Amino acid sequence: MKAVILASGLARRMGGLPKGLVRVGGREILYRSIHLLREQGIREFVLVVNRWNERAYRQFMEEAFGDEIEWKLVMNDAPERENGYSLHLVRSHLEGPFVLTMADHVYSRKFVDRAFRLHRGSPSAVIDEHPLHIDLEEATRVKCSGGRISKVAKNLDDYDAVDTGFFFLDDGVFDITASLLSEGVLPLSRVIEELKPECIRVSGEAWMDVDTKGDIRKATWMLIRDATKGKGDGWISRSINRPISRLITFATVEHLTPNTASILSFAIGILSSIITLLHPPSGALLYQFHSILDGVDGEIARVRLMESRVGGWMDSILDRVVDFSFLLALAFHLKPGVGLLPWIMAAVFGTVMVSYVSERFRGAFCRDPYQVIPYLRWMPGRRDERIFLIMLMVLAGMIPQTFVAIGLLTILKSTWNFAWMMKWARKPD
Amino acid sequence: MKAVILASGLARRMGGLPKGLVRVGGREILYRSIHLLREQGIREFVLVVNRWNERAYRQFMEEAFGDEIEWKLVMNDAPERENGYSLHLVRSHLEGPFVLTMADHVYSRKFVDRAFRLHRGSPSAVIDEHPLHIDLEEATRVKCSGGRISKVAKNLDDYDAVDTGFFFLDDGVFDITASLLSEGVLPLSRVIEELKPECIRVSGEAWMDVDTKGDIRKATWMLIRDATKGKGDGWISRSINRPISRLITFATVEHLTPNTASILSFAIGILSSIITLLHPPSGALLYQFHSILDGVDGEIARVRLMESRVGGWMDSILDRVVDFSFLLALAFHLKPGVGLLPWIMAAVFGTVMVSYVSERFRGAFCRDPYQVIPYLRWMPGRRDERIFLIMLMVLAGMIPQTFVAIGLLTILKSTWNFAWMMKWARKPD
Repeated sequence: MKAVILASGLARRMGGLPKGLVRVGGREILYRSIHLLREQGIREFVLVVNRWNERAYRQFMEEAFGDEIEWKLVMNDAPERENGYSLHLVRSHLEGPFVLTMADHVYSRKFVDRAFRLHRGSPSAVIDEHPLHIDLEEATRVKCSGGRISKVAKNLDDYDAVDTGFFFLDDGVFDITASLLSEGVLPLSRVIEELKPECIRVSGEAWMDVDTKGDIRKATWMLIRDATKGKGDGWISRSINRPISRLITFATVEHLTPNTASILSFAIGILSSIITLLHPPSGALLYQFHSILDGVDGEIARVRLMESRVGGWMDSILDRVVDFSFLLALAFHLKPGVGLLPWIMAAVFGTVMVSYVSERFRGAFCRDPYQVIPYLRWMPGRRDERIFLIMLMVLAGMIPQTFVAIGLLTILKSTWNFAWMMKWARKPD
Repeated sequence: MKAVILASGLARRMGGLPKGLVRVGGREILYRSIHLLREQGIREFVLVVNRWNERAYRQFMEEAFGDEIEWKLVMNDAPERENGYSLHLVRSHLEGPFVLTMADHVYSRKFVDRAFRLHRGSPSAVIDEHPLHIDLEEATRVKCSGGRISKVAKNLDDYDAVDTGFFFLDDGVFDITASLLSEGVLPLSRVIEELKPECIRVSGEAWMDVDTKGDIRKATWMLIRDATKGKGDGWISRSINRPISRLITFATVEHLTPNTASILSFAIGILSSIITLLHPPSGALLYQFHSILDGVDGEIARVRLMESRVGGWMDSILDRVVDFSFLLALAFHLKPGVGLLPWIMAAVFGTVMVSYVSERFRGAFCRDPYQVIPYLRWMPGRRDERIFLIMLMVLAGMIPQTFVAIGLLTILKSTWNFAWMMKWARKPD
């Protein structure tokens, strides 16, 4: 399947910058759409451009993709004739089914995934009954009757949903554009009303179009929030760490790669251990700050569409090293008697084991245990909670008790997780 | 595809026990063949039996498989007319391609895998140019000319390989059996000589036929050796642990399930910690014995065809618990000064991390790091080597030095593995 992306709009409100090249969450909108469509197996892209932005789009495509994908620019010499006319211009480049989307629309991966999963093969328009990030006054509204689009307009009073700018079409649509050509100005909504494609309802997913400079900020926030949704965060992470890490991600997503963020967070973790040798309360505060930062690399990776298995693997090993180095520094500072030794050893062991039990599960079954066994969340003891507890106890001056608490907590948590995973793994598929 | 298993031989040398029901490595030979063929996607089985063993085979099939697979017994009322005649009798039950094998032949999984991988679709005979476990005087020899079997006989002087009793045929073979039927006695070798199937060469894999009581022992050993081959064992494991664990497996494979063996090995590991509290040298010896036993569950699982992901997952978590409990007991016994504390913590942490780094790699990339990165083996520090080192040092009375050695060794080993894995993971696919 191919994809057509319409980029011939005049972008008056963006100060002349082609809208597809606007960067949202560290990536051009056009890069996002092409990246997500490639994940769905699309290899050929046709972009409709105009005489003012053609150069910029060509340069971008060459730099960003080069020969990696097949792409082609089609010139619309009369952009004032609108989107439907732009679509008509690609007719000689396409046969069979294709995806149509707009260069100024930002979609999340989950939106695109769901659209493709719900698509049954015939011409369809993806619509959203409850758009989260769209101003209903500005949006193009649609009416869906008998499973098909019957009306499309901005000012529709009787409507069901909003047009998302994402369509599955085939070359049959060019008969319609040809028949409407004499009208001069040809908005896409006219074409869709004639075509009456099936309705694909995708609601609750993140998507929006970028029309003004303010929308860039809004779209970046939308992507950051989406990147932290459903990650199975613990209580501390949800209520304390994430709100702060999101702000940091928002401020840095243009400048930091995920790997740089990981290394920065690791460095601050190690620094917190060194400071703990001298002044444990300051060290513990910095350790908690490291715990917040620890979310940033993953957020940046997801928002910038740079997730990698190497990144996740490296990150989780560096986390184990930071946790060990903090406990080591704390014990060094404390110079404990022999009575505390078993608790110190238990804290070191249990801290790795919480993660080991889960990771070994993932290795054996190639599944995320927290996704398949919700009971695991009932028992606290994940990293965000442990570090927060350590910070509180160290601030309260209870360093020996910290080892007892962490030893107990992590060994209980590992045992709890192990028992539930055992139960899950032994039940027949 | 279906499979035909010939079980109508008279088994004179086995004291009347049907040969397919002889247990080798804790499983009936017939169970093994059916299990391995099912793994290749075969769901229907036709067994040719005789009037003396029919009852025993029917009972076994009902108990072992019930409705799980489709199966059928075909009676050979004249087993003295030999194997080719037995094959002829199944003609009305088969259409298209099928696998033919013998109820008294034991094959390893790798043998069956390779045979299926090399099979190109046309009628073929699997032959072995260098059989490891077969007496060449007793074997049926074959001559392969121009890629096809030209001669099959026991006493062939000019031969290339040995017949493994494993064939890929199709219903065309029944024209040949029908045309040879008038000869009375019809050995399978006659049929194969007429058919001239393609030769599939599988050499170096474990397989043999079981003809005498002595062969049972020999076949069990063959399977145990095969179960420990290519496991990427370390030096201590290869030269000390495996030779002993194989003997234990040989003695217990009929009586122990893999899970029982795991739990037994875990119990002995914990016992070694308890004894270490009182008398470290005895505890360390028992710990090394636990390390030997630790191989038995996996060996039994592979020999009995009972490998499971749960088993491997549970086993590796229990190993971490035993290692921690031994270090804890040793530290408890030692009552060390504060100077040793960092080394004790490092030993506890590093001991888990060696495994963590590998398992997290497996979780991220779904690959065995020791298979894809041979350099990992160059650095010692795996579990068998660590435990052996601990035993030696504790026997030498060097308990404080043990923590230093294990702390250093495991942290170096984790770092070495991490660095090589990083290198592997970052190279483009």
